[in-house]
Amino acid sequence: MSQSIAAHPDRLLPADPGTRRIARELLGRVQDLPIISPHGHVDAAVLEQNTPFPDPAALLVSPDHYVTRLIHASGVPLDRLRLQAPAPADPSAADPSQAGPSQAGPSAAAPDSRTVWREFCQAWPLFEGTASGYWLRDQFRSVFGLDQEISGATADASYDAISARLQEPDFRPRQLFKDFNIEVLATTDDPLDDLSSHKALAEDVTFHGRVLPTFRPDAYLNPANPAWSANVERLIAAAGDGGSGFAGYLIALENRRRYFVEHGAVSADHGVRTPRTLKLDAADAERLFNRARSGEATAAEREDFEAHMMYQMARMSVEDGLVMTIHPGSFRNHHTDTFNQYGADTGHDIPFAIDYTESIRPVLQDFGTARDFHLVLFTMDETVYSRELAPLAGFYPSVYLGAPWWFLDAPDAMLRFRSAVTETAGFSRSSGFIDDTRAFCSIPARHDASRRIEASFLARLVAEHRISEDRAHDIIVDLVDGSPRRVFKL
Amino acid sequence: MSQSIAAHPDRLLPADPGTRRIARELLGRVQDLPIISPHGHVDAAVLEQNTPFPDPAALLVSPDHYVTRLIHASGVPLDRLRLQAPAPADPSAADPSQAGPSQAGPSAAAPDSRTVWREFCQAWPLFEGTASGYWLRDQFRSVFGLDQEISGATADASYDAISARLQEPDFRPRQLFKDFNIEVLATTDDPLDDLSSHKALAEDVTFHGRVLPTFRPDAYLNPANPAWSANVERLIAAAGDGGSGFAGYLIALENRRRYFVEHGAVSADHGVRTPRTLKLDAADAERLFNRARSGEATAAEREDFEAHMMYQMARMSVEDGLVMTIHPGSFRNHHTDTFNQYGADTGHDIPFAIDYTESIRPVLQDFGTARDFHLVLFTMDETVYSRELAPLAGFYPSVYLGAPWWFLDAPDAMLRFRSAVTETAGFSRSSGFIDDTRAFCSIPARHDASRRIEASFLARLVAEHRISEDRAHDIIVDLVDGSPRRVFKL
Amino acid sequence: MSQSIAAHPDRLLPADPGTRRIARELLGRVQDLPIISPHGHVDAAVLEQNTPFPDPAALLVSPDHYVTRLIHASGVPLDRLRLQAPAPADPSAADPSQAGPSQAGPSAAAPDSRTVWREFCQAWPLFEGTASGYWLRDQFRSVFGLDQEISGATADASYDAISARLQEPDFRPRQLFKDFNIEVLATTDDPLDDLSSHKALAEDVTFHGRVLPTFRPDAYLNPANPAWSANVERLIAAAGDGGSGFAGYLIALENRRRYFVEHGAVSADHGVRTPRTLKLDAADAERLFNRARSGEATAAEREDFEAHMMYQMARMSVEDGLVMTIHPGSFRNHHTDTFNQYGADTGHDIPFAIDYTESIRPVLQDFGTARDFHLVLFTMDETVYSRELAPLAGFYPSVYLGAPWWFLDAPDAMLRFRSAVTETAGFSRSSGFIDDTRAFCSIPARHDASRRIEASFLARLVAEHRISEDRAHDIIVDLVDGSPRRVFKL
Repeated sequence: MSQSIAAHPDRLLPADPGTRRIARELLGRVQDLPIISPHGHVDAAVLEQNTPFPDPAALLVSPDHYVTRLIHASGVPLDRLRLQAPAPADPSAADPSQAGPSQAGPSAAAPDSRTVWREFCQAWPLFEGTASGYWLRDQFRSVFGLDQEISGATADASYDAISARLQEPDFRPRQLFKDFNIEVLATTDDPLDDLSSHKALAEDVTFHGRVLPTFRPDAYLNPANPAWSANVERLIAAAGDGGSGFAGYLIALENRRRYFVEHGAVSADHGVRTPRTLKLDAADAERLFNRARSGEATAAEREDFEAHMMYQMARMSVEDGLVMTIHPGSFRNHHTDTFNQYGADTGHDIPFAIDYTESIRPVLQDFGTARDFHLVLFTMDETVYSRELAPLAGFYPSVYLGAPWWFLDAPDAMLRFRSAVTETAGFSRSSGFIDDTRAFCSIPARHDASRRIEASFLARLVAEHRISEDRAHDIIVDLVDGSPRRVFKL
Repeated sequence: MSQSIAAHPDRLLPADPGTRRIARELLGRVQDLPIISPHGHVDAAVLEQNTPFPDPAALLVSPDHYVTRLIHASGVPLDRLRLQAPAPADPSAADPSQAGPSQAGPSAAAPDSRTVWREFCQAWPLFEGTASGYWLRDQFRSVFGLDQEISGATADASYDAISARLQEPDFRPRQLFKDFNIEVLATTDDPLDDLSSHKALAEDVTFHGRVLPTFRPDAYLNPANPAWSANVERLIAAAGDGGSGFAGYLIALENRRRYFVEHGAVSADHGVRTPRTLKLDAADAERLFNRARSGEATAAEREDFEAHMMYQMARMSVEDGLVMTIHPGSFRNHHTDTFNQYGADTGHDIPFAIDYTESIRPVLQDFGTARDFHLVLFTMDETVYSRELAPLAGFYPSVYLGAPWWFLDAPDAMLRFRSAVTETAGFSRSSGFIDDTRAFCSIPARHDASRRIEASFLARLVAEHRISEDRAHDIIVDLVDGSPRRVFKL
Repeated sequence: MSQSIAAHPDRLLPADPGTRRIARELLGRVQDLPIISPHGHVDAAVLEQNTPFPDPAALLVSPDHYVTRLIHASGVPLDRLRLQAPAPADPSAADPSQAGPSQAGPSAAAPDSRTVWREFCQAWPLFEGTASGYWLRDQFRSVFGLDQEISGATADASYDAISARLQEPDFRPRQLFKDFNIEVLATTDDPLDDLSSHKALAEDVTFHGRVLPTFRPDAYLNPANPAWSANVERLIAAAGDGGSGFAGYLIALENRRRYFVEHGAVSADHGVRTPRTLKLDAADAERLFNRARSGEATAAEREDFEAHMMYQMARMSVEDGLVMTIHPGSFRNHHTDTFNQYGADTGHDIPFAIDYTESIRPVLQDFGTARDFHLVLFTMDETVYSRELAPLAGFYPSVYLGAPWWFLDAPDAMLRFRSAVTETAGFSRSSGFIDDTRAFCSIPARHDASRRIEASFLARLVAEHRISEDRAHDIIVDLVDGSPRRVFKL
């Protein structure tokens, strides 16, 4: 994985010379377009405060579970990658697979940054052929200016070079935001977040980008989450307009959504176990709510309640216009010992098979053709692409195909996605690229990879005379620029 | 999607120049072979009466739910595409997902043909990269002689050009049947159809094609269909040889199948929700029949009964020689409001995951090696190709791989099919292409696309020295011509 | 399928000339490396005794259910392929889908070898494009020196040529073992096998290969197997250290595993219906064991017991170091009549959908990060590649991706595997190629095909500038040589 390949102008483009020529032209149309990132996990405060980036390991290794997971698989314990221990887990907690991110204090015994960096450099060959490897290699070259290949032998040199870059005065979030040509960046936020950073950025005349909050209410909707009951109490107290019980809860959710809309939010995101939705009458919903609050609800009742709340979220989206995005199908925190030691988001969220056709039907029955309702469906189970998502998005005006996500956000997987959905749903029904990342410096690499793959897919269709070259030029501009603006109402 | 690409002799062929050269040669072997269409939905009466085709919108837009669905997804209500409202739905009707096509009268407020055509032309870019787009573009060029690209700006011109073509004296079903080089065309028919059109065509010495009926008994086998009980009553009265109850029902089905055989039918087709089959002893089957007839059957009992009737259909196929084809896995009429307003087949049939290994086993246990039994299994769930269908068809002499169907009847999907099944089942176990269409004018385009994809797949295997070029030539002729004759006993 | 293509140096390599050039270089790096075969079904006694190979049909046709199945599908009854009838099946036997291989005596009416060979030669075109066809064609050329294409017309000539070759003095297992450049060959063995052949080979100074036993306890772990109870009794009697009941059973299993380790075994293999595992406390496990032994266990209890025994096998692997391999997801003996007539392994084992994320979790919870535990997961359901296996193997140090197996052990399927898993798990987490065969003479062809496909996949990544050519050279050597040594602790 030498840096020379990261610099190659034809990287990711198809090998066939004729097809590559077409792909280059297509790529040329979109390479300089601004980045629109309607879903991700960057912290708005970092931009507001223009916080300097930390050291190389803390920036590029320790917090990135895509990176630590593969090194862990090779036999390196996570503590050698300086992942920190959480506060002692509550032994009475419910299934950790339902738990959200935990707040963890630093561990006294954590290795220093240079030591972690050396581990990473030793492990670098593991990343050959992976999506993370591609993004990192691209960053090393284009963001950090490394011209040497990462390796155990050169770990100290690369550490020093990156450290020096991190201390340069122009290497700050706001300058990079500009250098990266980001126009819109959505964050992901707790419903009770005061959005002060977003507000400050919007009011700052020296900052020209759009940084938008996203309403992410999972921990307030899923009674299996150990913090649910406390969250609900805080939510009602903060925004229930004096109401109580289920009615106050719904009002509080509506109020907080409105607050997000007022602060620029365009979407509400839902990280659910399954895409199941359920319509209930008000009395049944309230009864489940009360049973969940009192701790009497069975597992099935908790699931029914969450499924009903997805229905309610759709209803609220129809009313307040927030685009609804669903990210289901991951078994979170698969390895309990690792969760107990290192918390959530430590690399052992494992996908499983999902169904959309039945699961999402209750929402589509009532809201599938509702005016201006946008519902973006994501999957880590590729089998639903051709079987369910393309047919759904090819009929319901509300349904959009979420871009390949998480493990599928990679060159071959993105090509499989386009191949699976295009013949049924065409190019107009997909969401545009979603980088879904908290790794700010990787954003250009991710969008660049996506643009190269769109160009590759379209170039093949042109070479096979399935679409004309002129139309392919229009389509790639629409995929990169038009679709995210349209689907996310930007 | 300019018409120039529709005319390109290498359309759909692989981009690599060496592979394309091989593909061209392969295509040359089959390009002029007659069309054999053993499963489709053209109306035999149209051929019998040589009915002139209607106006452009009524021919190419309104009745084609592949076309209207994608325009609907873009935000155009179906009524602007002149789909007509059905008679008021019976509010006591069972789940519409079980209902068959409804009979609808024309709506007074429907737009005129030219207005619908303009909607379509405006929406034309949506079809780039889709199967429907490919077929339409091909028709526009080769059937209607358009040399200009479809667009909103040229909608009136294309409307007028197509209208003029439709009024030409040679533009009639019988002449096109000849021009299209169709040798065999199977229709899909109600078990109580008198098949008078088929009979008339067979007896007409001026008509040289074969137009064969297909026995399609879904509405007589599935008690969840609202019309089931009435259908059963009519069936027994018409063909039960004076018998009654379950015995009369079985006799009537056997009699009607024999009637179809006598009128040239070669297959019986089954559009079931799942491919489940079930063997029951006579007493249990009769008991379920009686409970279903009296309306007492539970949902599970209705499903058991339908699964048992699939077993009975296999048994009858063994006895009377009709090829049994199964098309499962679609959730019909997913959006109830649209069904209530516009009826069935309006673009919201959505596939879901199916299993064949367990489901079809009761039939295969008893009939899997029965002499001359042919069972053609279709799927819209691609996961069963390599996992279940190829292994089944690679052992049971009765089982054939149905060609890619419905949403999967498209270039990339057809290539995935061949790639998924060939290494296990070879080329001898597939059904040959099935166009499954009611759009008569699209038949040549569909068969042409299939032939190009077979040539493309085989050309890659030749280029990779997996098969010799000579053998590939034999194989493509067999796939296009030999397989459908052999599998459908033509 | 002429022999000329079998001899082509570029067979299976990609068509694009630039990519092919890269692939040739990559292939050159591994083409002469020794064969390491850590999982297969060759009989050690054949090597120990250096048994001459039988006639052409008995060597290449009758015992190979990959070959007979496709000929059977074409309408040739299995008895014409000289498959022998088993001893009369026990009418009281449980579901044949749970039964292991049956011991069958020769049928008096079986056709002679030349007649079977003629059937095969007539049927040869069926194998175009299949994995079996590729392996056979390669053998015919490189092992048997045929330069003419197999065909019905030349059946006697090819029969005579192969027969002559089989009688040559150097055409014996030990010489071929050397000629094939096999370094390690693992067999698959019954837990009570005395491993005398393995011992004799290990002590024979004239034999230089490693022939290792593999512990395969299915018939001792699954109470649904008709022979389970008798097997358990024999097992406890032979190795229970005088213990009885569940405790004696566990001790006996541990003792026999140790015996295998002492005789060179590196792995224990598990052919289970599903990959389900279950942790139970000792009392519950013993209770299920006793109920199964007394014949009182329900189907669910039998399944629970087997799932728990998979957990126990993992525990024992952690303790004794045997690599644990799991081969799930096949519905064995799908056609009961064929099973009754011809026994198991007669071509009607049909895959079905499986899940790993939930099923394997109990084992991974307790042993997923255990030191030196190696768990190799195989699948015939391709959907788990990107969805479950790559994510699991990309986190758990114990989990390795089993190479494409059974129906998926074929060029296109192997390419799909690499494409599906690499972007998530890289190249370091896969098992290396597994030939899984009892067809000794096919071993070089199978490994050669695998090496060509690894070269093809890597060449595409190089051509698309995803990895550098230098690194690809390192990777292919590691895939072919390093991975199997490392994963199987050789």
